[in-house]
Amino acid sequence: MASIFSKIVAGEIPSYKVAEDERYYAFLDISPLTKGHTLVIPKREVDYIFDLPDEELAGLHVFAKRVAVAIKKAFPCEKVGMCVIGLEVRHAHIHLIPMKTEADIRFNRPHLELKPEELADIAARIKACL
Amino acid sequence: MASIFSKIVAGEIPSYKVAEDERYYAFLDISPLTKGHTLVIPKREVDYIFDLPDEELAGLHVFAKRVAVAIKKAFPCEKVGMCVIGLEVRHAHIHLIPMKTEADIRFNRPHLELKPEELADIAARIKACL
Repeated sequence: MASIFSKIVAGEIPSYKVAEDERYYAFLDISPLTKGHTLVIPKREVDYIFDLPDEELAGLHVFAKRVAVAIKKAFPCEKVGMCVIGLEVRHAHIHLIPMKTEADIRFNRPHLELKPEELADIAARIKACL
Repeated sequence: MASIFSKIVAGEIPSYKVAEDERYYAFLDISPLTKGHTLVIPKREVDYIFDLPDEELAGLHVFAKRVAVAIKKAFPCEKVGMCVIGLEVRHAHIHLIPMKTEADIRFNRPHLELKPEELADIAARIKACL
């Protein structure tokens, strides 16, 4: 069965898209740790990020960098942190999280609850910085 | 002033080295979240990972993958997680952390206190799997 992220890529499940090319896709985490928290994935469904071939892995990170630079412009922060856990959704994904302090990247802290219009605005602000 | 990691690369500060090539260096975190927790850095001192040029960033992640594959062989786990925070040491570094559950990658949980001989043994076990 296709992962929820493959369904997002296929447009079967809506997402707040931030960026896309032939191989990669970036969209907002709808339960973000901070405003601008974005997920970056390979379109091809691979569970474990380190199972990606070198070239596809390298391309994913170069694509993620482009998104991270835009996030930092749209949401000024100390740095954009990066995390790959992958024990829930079995489709490799990089979390990009604007951080002011290390606490901002703790996954067990309360996530933000944002309204659809707020998420749409965040995605638009990041896209405008790409 | 050179970062503590530049001093490690230069051999001025000892480390439990896991892997090295011309451009990248991997060594154990001496205050690990789980056994096998390793740091991967570019030898060139750059603070923010997303300031690395594309090619150097891509190479860093391909190098980190090689290390992550060895960590997973040496320390069987669900996945090796990856995190970049970088608000303390101002020299870009990727944390590679063998995870059995998501709690294993929480930076605010108690870190392990390992003896030098335990750390040496961990580094040797990872190296043997490279």
